[in-house]
Amino acid sequence: MSNNDISIHPPTRWLFGPGPSQVHPRVYEAMRQPIVGHLDPYFFTVNEDIQQMLRRVFGTENKLTFAISGTGSGGMETAITNFVEPGAKVAVLASGYFADRMTDMAKRQGGDVVRFEKPWGGVFADAEAADFIRREKPRVVMYVHAETSSGAVQKGKAICAAAHEVGAIVITDVVTSLGAMPVQVDETGIDVAYSCTQKGLSCPPGLAPITLSPRAAERLNERASTNRSWYFDLKLLNDFYNVSHRYHHTVSITLFYALHEALTLIVEEGVENRWQRHQRAHAQFVTGIEALGLRMHVPDDVNRIVNLNTPCVPEGVDDAKVRTALVRDHGIEIAGGFGPLAGKVFRIGIMGPLATEEHVARLLEHFGSALQAAGLDRTPAAVTT
Amino acid sequence: MSNNDISIHPPTRWLFGPGPSQVHPRVYEAMRQPIVGHLDPYFFTVNEDIQQMLRRVFGTENKLTFAISGTGSGGMETAITNFVEPGAKVAVLASGYFADRMTDMAKRQGGDVVRFEKPWGGVFADAEAADFIRREKPRVVMYVHAETSSGAVQKGKAICAAAHEVGAIVITDVVTSLGAMPVQVDETGIDVAYSCTQKGLSCPPGLAPITLSPRAAERLNERASTNRSWYFDLKLLNDFYNVSHRYHHTVSITLFYALHEALTLIVEEGVENRWQRHQRAHAQFVTGIEALGLRMHVPDDVNRIVNLNTPCVPEGVDDAKVRTALVRDHGIEIAGGFGPLAGKVFRIGIMGPLATEEHVARLLEHFGSALQAAGLDRTPAAVTT
Repeated sequence: MSNNDISIHPPTRWLFGPGPSQVHPRVYEAMRQPIVGHLDPYFFTVNEDIQQMLRRVFGTENKLTFAISGTGSGGMETAITNFVEPGAKVAVLASGYFADRMTDMAKRQGGDVVRFEKPWGGVFADAEAADFIRREKPRVVMYVHAETSSGAVQKGKAICAAAHEVGAIVITDVVTSLGAMPVQVDETGIDVAYSCTQKGLSCPPGLAPITLSPRAAERLNERASTNRSWYFDLKLLNDFYNVSHRYHHTVSITLFYALHEALTLIVEEGVENRWQRHQRAHAQFVTGIEALGLRMHVPDDVNRIVNLNTPCVPEGVDDAKVRTALVRDHGIEIAGGFGPLAGKVFRIGIMGPLATEEHVARLLEHFGSALQAAGLDRTPAAVTT
Repeated sequence: MSNNDISIHPPTRWLFGPGPSQVHPRVYEAMRQPIVGHLDPYFFTVNEDIQQMLRRVFGTENKLTFAISGTGSGGMETAITNFVEPGAKVAVLASGYFADRMTDMAKRQGGDVVRFEKPWGGVFADAEAADFIRREKPRVVMYVHAETSSGAVQKGKAICAAAHEVGAIVITDVVTSLGAMPVQVDETGIDVAYSCTQKGLSCPPGLAPITLSPRAAERLNERASTNRSWYFDLKLLNDFYNVSHRYHHTVSITLFYALHEALTLIVEEGVENRWQRHQRAHAQFVTGIEALGLRMHVPDDVNRIVNLNTPCVPEGVDDAKVRTALVRDHGIEIAGGFGPLAGKVFRIGIMGPLATEEHVARLLEHFGSALQAAGLDRTPAAVTT
């Protein structure tokens, strides 16, 4: 059967946006396999493998590590609805859109939110983050590891240490980083980390991997009030996935097949090898755009997300024009900034099958041409290394 | 590429359980199509088509008709979290597991729930349902159209009329019926109906179609408190799907492809033709099991779900033995009863590609043999018509 026989005829796209990222043909093949029931022993085998492989990309030995039936935002809602009880004090380190979304969700759960704010792209130094947490003594601390809205990475070790000092647990958003760069849940001391499938894991969207430390599991068991969400209730979900295997909801078996195959590809390549490949692609891209005269929004390279680049839009260039030309002429999707960074940055993801020298070179070539056509006022300089 | 090259090797299954149901090859082919971004114009085209086709299977002209990024249970949580405000009185007509789940979710939202209860499989007569609603004067009325746990269908016209009399809106669970039998949202007067993809629509699980009447849309706009859920907030979702197309969450484009193809198959066959085909398959099945000496749990045939049959387990037969033999010897999945119906009924879904004379005849043959091997104490009689 070909796509002449069906109603779906998508245009060809090179997905260099912040996600979804390009999907490997083996993952598509996995999604074509016949479904089984959500209580079929085969599903639980697939689920068990996924849990094992997720532990490797998360960098954890957490028993409670599985995939939620929702997108990355569903993962965020799962973390927050389970761990932010009404009236609980929640400290948020906020310097981008996704920290704002965490704030919104925590308030909807009745959380008493206090924020330490920086402009989008800012990162929090160890001492100032720890001071904030020690001063506020919250019950929950939240931060975003890789802020897709700004391109910045936030280190977590000092945050987690300070949080544990005051008896708080830490929720970390690793939606963009998981699979493309180290997230090191155990080494960092993170208690709850959630992600998506369509960025660093290079799988179609639809599931949200999540992991809970023993400390988080204990907090979950001690929770006094009933979770306001039934769908995202981790007690019920853990019972289904890991304990009784009794029906909770009907998981999307096709998405589990896809995630299984995407994780198998990662394990075959080697988790560390994959991180290094993404690092090389990132370095090549940054060198390339600097040669075009552009600079990165996040000044210090150790604070940059490896798989999501935010070069500044050069003076005099209309970023929408660049994006439109790339998709129209080459089927290349990149994204623009939004919120305070609207019109000020591009957001360019280089992940999964596209994180290779050849693909980055091709991207740079077309990106450079599109920038010039949109008014870039200098001739690309030769790459100086 | 074949499945020799990948890690997914599911067993062959004939899905005669309560769902997921068998999936057409064209739907699998659709899921193999390359993904595009969630803000790509192609996604919104697919989404627009889906909305149109969903209106036909729902039997509605409701503008607000779309698919939620979650399973059927996510659809239930969407309906309840948006329309059950803390303190609101909620009247539930309860005679099965899914009405109990609605009750649980409504309580988690802070709803003040009152219930009219009958044993599993019971249906509510027009007058008694209307009396209950007129007496309780709730803000929200909830009932299940097709109770997957019992096999019973609940008519809704009198319920909706009484609810509207007292100023309530009506939430109806059509998870099992949508696509396999008429749900007639507009004609019945339903305000909010939600469903899943993996039963009557014969698509893999993962999305939850939902539709809102103009009365429900008005109620949504008038809502005083902020929805506790961000992920399922229908105001935000409607803005993304239908108004601004601004980013809310990253929809699972692959599941949208699948739903588009599954609905296209239904529209090609004709919605009414499909309902009739399911009705014929149901009648053939009931005649067949009665010839085996079995009787249906729901006594009156007008109260039976067409695509989910609940024959009683005959005296002296171990139902688990029957189910195990069918899956082991023939790859046929059927389900047992649970809760008060555990060990008392089988739950046998006949939907989508399997709702044909040939497939039903094959099912009956193997089901009959498995029953006899498990202790059925009479020789199947000839079919008497």
